[in-house]
Amino acid sequence: WARAVRGLLLDISGVLYDSGGEGGGVPIAGSVEAVRRIKASGLKLQFCTNETQASREKFVKKLQGLGFDISVAEVTAPAPAACRLLKERGLRPHLLVHDDLIPEFAEIDKTNPNCVVIGDAAENFSYANLNEAFRVLIGLEKPVLVALGKGRYYKETDGLKLDVGAYMKALEYACDVQAEVVGKPAKTFFESALAEMGVPPEQAIMIGDDIVCDVGGAQQCGMRAVQVRTGKYRPCDENHPQVKPDAYVNNLAEAVDVILNQM
Amino acid sequence: WARAVRGLLLDISGVLYDSGGEGGGVPIAGSVEAVRRIKASGLKLQFCTNETQASREKFVKKLQGLGFDISVAEVTAPAPAACRLLKERGLRPHLLVHDDLIPEFAEIDKTNPNCVVIGDAAENFSYANLNEAFRVLIGLEKPVLVALGKGRYYKETDGLKLDVGAYMKALEYACDVQAEVVGKPAKTFFESALAEMGVPPEQAIMIGDDIVCDVGGAQQCGMRAVQVRTGKYRPCDENHPQVKPDAYVNNLAEAVDVILNQM
Repeated sequence: WARAVRGLLLDISGVLYDSGGEGGGVPIAGSVEAVRRIKASGLKLQFCTNETQASREKFVKKLQGLGFDISVAEVTAPAPAACRLLKERGLRPHLLVHDDLIPEFAEIDKTNPNCVVIGDAAENFSYANLNEAFRVLIGLEKPVLVALGKGRYYKETDGLKLDVGAYMKALEYACDVQAEVVGKPAKTFFESALAEMGVPPEQAIMIGDDIVCDVGGAQQCGMRAVQVRTGKYRPCDENHPQVKPDAYVNNLAEAVDVILNQM
Repeated sequence: WARAVRGLLLDISGVLYDSGGEGGGVPIAGSVEAVRRIKASGLKLQFCTNETQASREKFVKKLQGLGFDISVAEVTAPAPAACRLLKERGLRPHLLVHDDLIPEFAEIDKTNPNCVVIGDAAENFSYANLNEAFRVLIGLEKPVLVALGKGRYYKETDGLKLDVGAYMKALEYACDVQAEVVGKPAKTFFESALAEMGVPPEQAIMIGDDIVCDVGGAQQCGMRAVQVRTGKYRPCDENHPQVKPDAYVNNLAEAVDVILNQM
């Protein structure tokens, strides 16, 4: 599975580090070094995350603080993907997102909105804000809803929280529309990460911990995909009815060992 | 369509009166008198509403203030139907409902909840309250979600608002469950209204303004159903692809004329 590779796509949470709530987290053993070795090898490298509670600036600073050699330009995230989609189609969004994500949309025209963009808005998912987004959407002749992911829920230190997917479903039902989901496992999302690297899918490998979003999504796009046994990996993933990774590895360090040995 | 009738089921909003926002409203011409004539005729009578923003006590007081001869016992509403379901199945609810609806659940054991009941909670649809209801639901071995209706949205004086159905969909998606919907058009809802009257479905007529929830729901239950051309009635309802009323009438007064003339 590791032959003829020119570029690697890495998921972040569960591959580079385990998040510990409240902005904390610890690197997964060997991952800091593995990223350095990829860069030294001359392979192209891009990171690929569904994180939407912070701008890439802020998120990358946290990872740098954990010791990772990573820059904003190397991170493919839903918000910039949404910005590209908005620009291409002349869409002016009403934003229902986390305050920390708003800077990602700084260059986008938001006057007289003709679509709604929904992310993991957390505390911004208030009754008033949801009604406001709904009114924008239902008032459009052809409602367009762009969702920065479709997660059901996630865990924080103070308990489980509803994720963007749940609120997306509420607006979908109320307006009788289907959201366009940006972020993994969307094909266009992987395509834009590949474009950043300038590598065709058949020469790229995705490394992730999520059997459906990372592995399944990348394979749908024509890439090879490897699942690490870290992060949200569970043994039952190895019997997944639809998705079969090209390989399993114990962690990122092992994947990088195999790939660099093939070169 | 008006032969051999022993009981009438009347929708309230759009049949008895048009709501004017902020607790106001005006009776539809002839409806106050029509209710009196039904009662004088000896026909059984029950009212059937999906209202969940107020207790029946409060709602009935408003209707009495508009001149209607109506009492709490004559109103079949989602909250009491939910209470019956809860008691029958030994369910102890976590309530995500409007403050004014809580008295309807006074006699229900709410300790150590093993299900969630969701109504049109309005301002109570906060981020914190939704997460709390979600955590109760996802923490159950077999999550049970009871919804007091499945409306998409409604109009108030200050604009459109998301209705209970939208938030129901959010919880359904997050927990991978299907809500049990109490209220029209649920068959059990009409059955409990019929049981209140002590009249079998084939001897009862439903009169409503909603082609799907009132007319379709009642017919599914074996009743005849008449659509009034008041309230939310729209001319295009007369070409509905699935539902065909047994008759159209201009308003409640006309329906009552025809029925009483047949007796």
